[in-house]
Amino acid sequence: MSSSSVAIFGASGFSGAVLAALIKEHPFISLDFLGANTHAGQSLSSLYPALHLSSLPTLSSHDTLIEKAPELDAVFCCLPHNISSSVISNLLRQKPQLRIVDLSASLRIKNPHIYQQTYNLSLNENLIQNAVYGLPEIYRNDIKNSSLIANPGCYTTASLLPLIPLLHHKLIEPQDILIDAKSGVSGAGRKNDADFSFCHINNQFKAYALEGHRHEPEINQELSFALKRAQNLTPEALEPYETSALFIPHLVPMSRGILCTLYTKALPSLIPLSSSEKIWETLAATYQDEPFVHVLPFGEIPSTAHTLHSNKCTIGVAKRTHNDNRHIIVSVIDNLMKGASGQALQNLNIMMGWPETTGLQHLTVPI
Amino acid sequence: MSSSSVAIFGASGFSGAVLAALIKEHPFISLDFLGANTHAGQSLSSLYPALHLSSLPTLSSHDTLIEKAPELDAVFCCLPHNISSSVISNLLRQKPQLRIVDLSASLRIKNPHIYQQTYNLSLNENLIQNAVYGLPEIYRNDIKNSSLIANPGCYTTASLLPLIPLLHHKLIEPQDILIDAKSGVSGAGRKNDADFSFCHINNQFKAYALEGHRHEPEINQELSFALKRAQNLTPEALEPYETSALFIPHLVPMSRGILCTLYTKALPSLIPLSSSEKIWETLAATYQDEPFVHVLPFGEIPSTAHTLHSNKCTIGVAKRTHNDNRHIIVSVIDNLMKGASGQALQNLNIMMGWPETTGLQHLTVPI
Amino acid sequence: MSSSSVAIFGASGFSGAVLAALIKEHPFISLDFLGANTHAGQSLSSLYPALHLSSLPTLSSHDTLIEKAPELDAVFCCLPHNISSSVISNLLRQKPQLRIVDLSASLRIKNPHIYQQTYNLSLNENLIQNAVYGLPEIYRNDIKNSSLIANPGCYTTASLLPLIPLLHHKLIEPQDILIDAKSGVSGAGRKNDADFSFCHINNQFKAYALEGHRHEPEINQELSFALKRAQNLTPEALEPYETSALFIPHLVPMSRGILCTLYTKALPSLIPLSSSEKIWETLAATYQDEPFVHVLPFGEIPSTAHTLHSNKCTIGVAKRTHNDNRHIIVSVIDNLMKGASGQALQNLNIMMGWPETTGLQHLTVPI
Amino acid sequence: MSSSSVAIFGASGFSGAVLAALIKEHPFISLDFLGANTHAGQSLSSLYPALHLSSLPTLSSHDTLIEKAPELDAVFCCLPHNISSSVISNLLRQKPQLRIVDLSASLRIKNPHIYQQTYNLSLNENLIQNAVYGLPEIYRNDIKNSSLIANPGCYTTASLLPLIPLLHHKLIEPQDILIDAKSGVSGAGRKNDADFSFCHINNQFKAYALEGHRHEPEINQELSFALKRAQNLTPEALEPYETSALFIPHLVPMSRGILCTLYTKALPSLIPLSSSEKIWETLAATYQDEPFVHVLPFGEIPSTAHTLHSNKCTIGVAKRTHNDNRHIIVSVIDNLMKGASGQALQNLNIMMGWPETTGLQHLTVPI
Repeated sequence: MSSSSVAIFGASGFSGAVLAALIKEHPFISLDFLGANTHAGQSLSSLYPALHLSSLPTLSSHDTLIEKAPELDAVFCCLPHNISSSVISNLLRQKPQLRIVDLSASLRIKNPHIYQQTYNLSLNENLIQNAVYGLPEIYRNDIKNSSLIANPGCYTTASLLPLIPLLHHKLIEPQDILIDAKSGVSGAGRKNDADFSFCHINNQFKAYALEGHRHEPEINQELSFALKRAQNLTPEALEPYETSALFIPHLVPMSRGILCTLYTKALPSLIPLSSSEKIWETLAATYQDEPFVHVLPFGEIPSTAHTLHSNKCTIGVAKRTHNDNRHIIVSVIDNLMKGASGQALQNLNIMMGWPETTGLQHLTVPI
Repeated sequence: MSSSSVAIFGASGFSGAVLAALIKEHPFISLDFLGANTHAGQSLSSLYPALHLSSLPTLSSHDTLIEKAPELDAVFCCLPHNISSSVISNLLRQKPQLRIVDLSASLRIKNPHIYQQTYNLSLNENLIQNAVYGLPEIYRNDIKNSSLIANPGCYTTASLLPLIPLLHHKLIEPQDILIDAKSGVSGAGRKNDADFSFCHINNQFKAYALEGHRHEPEINQELSFALKRAQNLTPEALEPYETSALFIPHLVPMSRGILCTLYTKALPSLIPLSSSEKIWETLAATYQDEPFVHVLPFGEIPSTAHTLHSNKCTIGVAKRTHNDNRHIIVSVIDNLMKGASGQALQNLNIMMGWPETTGLQHLTVPI
Repeated sequence: MSSSSVAIFGASGFSGAVLAALIKEHPFISLDFLGANTHAGQSLSSLYPALHLSSLPTLSSHDTLIEKAPELDAVFCCLPHNISSSVISNLLRQKPQLRIVDLSASLRIKNPHIYQQTYNLSLNENLIQNAVYGLPEIYRNDIKNSSLIANPGCYTTASLLPLIPLLHHKLIEPQDILIDAKSGVSGAGRKNDADFSFCHINNQFKAYALEGHRHEPEINQELSFALKRAQNLTPEALEPYETSALFIPHLVPMSRGILCTLYTKALPSLIPLSSSEKIWETLAATYQDEPFVHVLPFGEIPSTAHTLHSNKCTIGVAKRTHNDNRHIIVSVIDNLMKGASGQALQNLNIMMGWPETTGLQHLTVPI
Repeated sequence: MSSSSVAIFGASGFSGAVLAALIKEHPFISLDFLGANTHAGQSLSSLYPALHLSSLPTLSSHDTLIEKAPELDAVFCCLPHNISSSVISNLLRQKPQLRIVDLSASLRIKNPHIYQQTYNLSLNENLIQNAVYGLPEIYRNDIKNSSLIANPGCYTTASLLPLIPLLHHKLIEPQDILIDAKSGVSGAGRKNDADFSFCHINNQFKAYALEGHRHEPEINQELSFALKRAQNLTPEALEPYETSALFIPHLVPMSRGILCTLYTKALPSLIPLSSSEKIWETLAATYQDEPFVHVLPFGEIPSTAHTLHSNKCTIGVAKRTHNDNRHIIVSVIDNLMKGASGQALQNLNIMMGWPETTGLQHLTVPI
């Protein structure tokens, strides 16, 4: 098989750099272009020394790269959400059949009012119609037949994978979901900002965005869509959400990793109380054949070490001594892998018809 | 004023070492003895290099120290809960009027069944009758008149200070309290245990004790007692708890600090929805004159940096964009200060009739 | 005694913020003004949450503050070296007898050619004539009689304190001194720079400035001056340095602390080989009465934990199994205390005739 | 090709766990047994959660495993040096032609007196005769023809790779070599020891073993052997070392990585002063075809990030502004890869005739 030609736009950020490293090891991809306006002309390894032996293309300005669209098979877009959709439009003008995975938030929210409210921008309605939400475990078939993927948010991925099956099987109360999320610092991206300097992060822990984080509507959109699908109804972008999951993120002094502690409430009409085991059985059965989602034995709880540097999501269900009608689920991912670049590559693998795990079965790092 | 003579039992652990450092700066205390069985004969600075210039007494075995009781005015007991109450009994046999602050859990739980269930030990019923729960902001008058203090748990302190006034004023639903707590590693104490080695803690975040942490009943005991007092009833140790606060702790890769994210539910019969501001007003009014509890302006949220190395508890109330009937409160403490040694010294100050902040108004550490 | 009125210029940086915290606890100083151009109008605690209870003056622009000079008794200048001397000149124009401690490098180097070569700036020759190099253990008497202090560099302080006595007593070869230095990240100051972001510092260690760090000539100036003084000669700024100490710094993933490993060579004509003990005796005798320099017992080696958050310099001399003619000395300081703000306050104490340790005898932090 | 059957003795330690992870991805090896006395019966993933999906054999006691020797093709021995050689002897009694890579120090030192002095143990003289020092870049041909490999120490590897070519080409003074080494904490291994607990390591930097580290004689042995070979002489174990490299290690608060700052002195009779470029050229030429040693462009200096999680050694030579006759070289490795497990696998690849990089060309980790 000849290699597919791929470019990364926004390669100088963390998700772009991780994608570059992943793609260099991918057997079917030729990584031909790296775009980064601020650092155009430099090598990516001048920013990320670990890449110094990877013989990567020099960083080019995005304008230059857009002209290369006709030569490309696929593009990963790792740009800020406020410029991503215009770059994508320009690329598609150059080559309408180009496959694109957008790692920004610009095509994740289907409802233009909510998008406006959340991101203070107009939704690109042409693009949104064709964009598929790239959570493969839920939308695998749609991804296969699409050429434009909205790669999910990191927190969203870690929240949706455990919650969607539970809503689907009507095991939990849709109006009483609480997501207490904790993330390593790379989730904020590469920034010239003293607030993210080592001395202002090290040795401290904080909550943030308590007034309402942008991933909260993204989570509720997908939970609501899941509820609709459970009733064999088609999700409609314009309908109000049927869930009101509360999402509160926190910042952990470590580089990578997300852990979500999910507090759900049993639906008492449907299942007996103290049925965390039923929750666990449902999750274990749902994901038993998924290559990138793993449910631990009942009562075992993952730490972020379970998935560090891997594309996995690992899920545990708590076994409480004192039974009550709360079910506690813990999910972990590496925010730069299953939460961003790894999942983006998984999506491209699906779109291209390659085995879904190609280039994503890496060395685990025990220490 | 001549100095009071004080000993620390269990000085080699983290709370003992921090107490030693605090007491060395205390104007009214002479730190005459340090007990530590394992390290008897060594200096405390051989374990804690920062203390190398503090001219502290050499570590002695606890048996030796118990005989010194008649010479002592007060003892801090930083021993494991399974030996603490027998040491305390021996000390009191030597000198019945000795003032003791017990930093272990051995005298915190009033109900013998729950103590047995939680700690797998019999409660010392003689001691428990005289022991006052040492949360000064709630029990200041009792502490003044007591000579035996059960110093609260670290998580418990950070949870109770914001919750008790809200229950007292009937602002939140007692049956729907959720405490998602995060602690630095020193909370686990000084241990020869590879699981707490640098390489197994650094770069990872985890939840633990999901089956039920020992501070959960301690929290519910005190919340229930607060509810009773709000009805002008006397708390009874043997009654079942009237709250079922759910408490889930997590381990943060940092040395010191606790942050609790508290999810409470408005009591709709009593206050209008969207009344987080009422929550905030109540907390701000409650603590306006307290030297060690500070409530930030409405909508400002503390990080653990707010209280690092200080004896303060700092509290923030979230201002949510989308109002709902959840109120989110964040409280932070330094687990070794207000969560252990600092509060222990605050308790002794109260018992001795010294100004409550003596030796506890330290330099803040901005970096 | 009425309080002296003091301002900090450049208060938003790390050394400024630490000074603010120190001065708030100082019994003889009223901290009346804080200057910070970028953050003028904000509170210092918006940058450093630990200061949220310190009731500090709001940050003002430096131009505004210069006009306040007549009301001030002393100023700490924590500005970049390229603007520091012009601000100082302006302040002195307003009030010639103002006491100033300059924490920048602008007045440390006495030789204008070397200053030009090192900092690419002209030396302010008017100011330099009056500026005293503020290393109290060496220049205490000059500091007493001066009103303008060039506060030494952090690495320089940690290097000079052990080396100067050894050169003075002709115990080591002046041409063969090697300083391998390691510093926490706060030494670089508060920066909006992705290279100092948590993710680019955490989990890695690096050497830097191998082509020649700016503290290298500062170190050699002071070592050469010490050699001159040992011969009862007056140091002359324009003479070439008589030492060629090699200085290589490294960056440690921690916030505070400097450790210097000093490799010196015995002068064989003067002392027998294997005489590290003689080195140790000399250092111990030199510093036995100094409040802020401590020499450990022979063979004990300090870690940065020995001086974290304190104004101390702690020194150890290695006892080698295989004797050779190398003597290895390790010195540690807290770069923000004895390496910057603590030493600046020590200098002001001396200038003002206050006890030298006022406001600098803080709680040690064992964990 | 059918898989070779391999066992790891001492699998529960850090180097054993990393080897297990590496071997699971190796195409020609079947990892059939894992030995660990303390944790026999447990899974390796109970100690290292990242391995939870790796389907590894359960940990067995070493006695059980020794009996399996006849079924094995090769063994990695990750045991403490005081038991390693007796386990190896037992294994070889069971199967004399078994290939063994010993990661302990038990077979590194050739001189029995120095071994005795350094490790306080008798050298196993039978084994030492057949053991080849497993630094492939120096001893590749010997390794090919050996079945018993003494895998070098981590610090030793990082020191020897830059120094040996310089001694070989007579570019540096053999009597004036100074190695200031810094290591992440995993170098100390997995330990139940409070001194290595997170709270005692985090936020501090220290020197250690200043009286003489065990890797110092190992370094001098190999430097001396290199000098001999440069003169076409055969190294003799019993001759005194011809170098006296001084080696001082330090502990960095990070999990993985070693950086050595090497201070060498030009041999003035042979090369002009200021010839760091000559040093660089020699290193660059020596290693241009080596897969696992990389020399950066002249004047570029690596950080530990350059080799984190890879089997590479990356070397930089400083370009000093002020030329002097010191040459400064910086080398970095990942102590668990090129410093232990990666190099061990490289050695097995060579012994087995497999391509040397098999299973060692992993994903770089940019963040």
